[in-house]
Amino acid sequence: MLTLYFAPHSCALASHLALEHSGAVYEARRVDLANGEQRSPAYLRVNPKGRVPALITEQGVLTETPAILAYIAQRFPRARLAPLDDPFLFAEAQSFNSYLCSTVHVAHAHRYRGHRWADDPAAIEAMRIKVPQTMKACFDQIENDFFRGPFVLGEQYSICDLYLFTVSRWLPGDDVDVNWFPKVAALQRRMLADAAVQKVLAAQ
Amino acid sequence: MLTLYFAPHSCALASHLALEHSGAVYEARRVDLANGEQRSPAYLRVNPKGRVPALITEQGVLTETPAILAYIAQRFPRARLAPLDDPFLFAEAQSFNSYLCSTVHVAHAHRYRGHRWADDPAAIEAMRIKVPQTMKACFDQIENDFFRGPFVLGEQYSICDLYLFTVSRWLPGDDVDVNWFPKVAALQRRMLADAAVQKVLAAQ
Repeated sequence: MLTLYFAPHSCALASHLALEHSGAVYEARRVDLANGEQRSPAYLRVNPKGRVPALITEQGVLTETPAILAYIAQRFPRARLAPLDDPFLFAEAQSFNSYLCSTVHVAHAHRYRGHRWADDPAAIEAMRIKVPQTMKACFDQIENDFFRGPFVLGEQYSICDLYLFTVSRWLPGDDVDVNWFPKVAALQRRMLADAAVQKVLAAQ
Repeated sequence: MLTLYFAPHSCALASHLALEHSGAVYEARRVDLANGEQRSPAYLRVNPKGRVPALITEQGVLTETPAILAYIAQRFPRARLAPLDDPFLFAEAQSFNSYLCSTVHVAHAHRYRGHRWADDPAAIEAMRIKVPQTMKACFDQIENDFFRGPFVLGEQYSICDLYLFTVSRWLPGDDVDVNWFPKVAALQRRMLADAAVQKVLAAQ
């Protein structure tokens, strides 16, 4: 039995989608970020970083979206959520997800979480107003250089699509129109029509 | 034959160390960041992101440190650079490296690369002065919660050590003393005494 700690609108959606697609028996538990549950002693025992997602497995706790996604793909290989048999193709998937976590998610985080990197309110506001520009630049790069189509890695639906779908849902709040990126927009539409995706979105 | 594009003092050191430890036949090519070679048309054909590292393989190019490290570990399993046989243990290694790239490297980047996230010079300065605090917080978390000792994952030297060693070398420039973190400091000393590490540092 796997337990995923998540919060709505967070990057934990990607791991939630992967669990649903994997066929795993799992439970999804909501963490109340608005009331600071992520900083409660009970939650810090689960994840000392005080963030979501965290995945409780029989062997221990995993954090960080790219690691959780690769774990689910490797543990449930029949779901074919990643190219597991070729180190190069697997690394391509990991590279895409690493870019999402270290560049795209970080660009987005400067909208609401600038206090992580500066204390001056004017600096935090200066970060906030640049987010539409940085997020557009990231999605231009994804659309033009890394998204093969119809899925990120080509013909095979994978953990990269789940993570990109998750991050792409932040675009309206960042004043970026997903339709500027036709392949990303088509992926969004296709996934929103999927019963498993709809089930997870309803559960969140 | 593998070719690694690197720049001194960058996170590409981790991949360079992994190649040296792996026994691979490889070439390391320096990219002249000071003169903007990373934005040259020739280099952008290698890596459209205009960053290092980039690893040229027979199957194509890989970017992003966590992905390159996992690739080298999987392709050269005899070097035992990652726990490859257990999805959970492999994910723990990936989680550690993902934290380094998406949180620790990002915290450090606010010292010299604040222009990525804001245009106002005062905001960029506000980011710069918070870096010692954020880097200390990251290394406190690593030392207290994630570093098992004597190596990051416990008894087995791995890609996590190579990446942590790389990032820990940025601490003096960020006004943080590595000796505040005894396990990290011991890892640094141990690795600096290693002939393969010395060879790579000399080559860079």
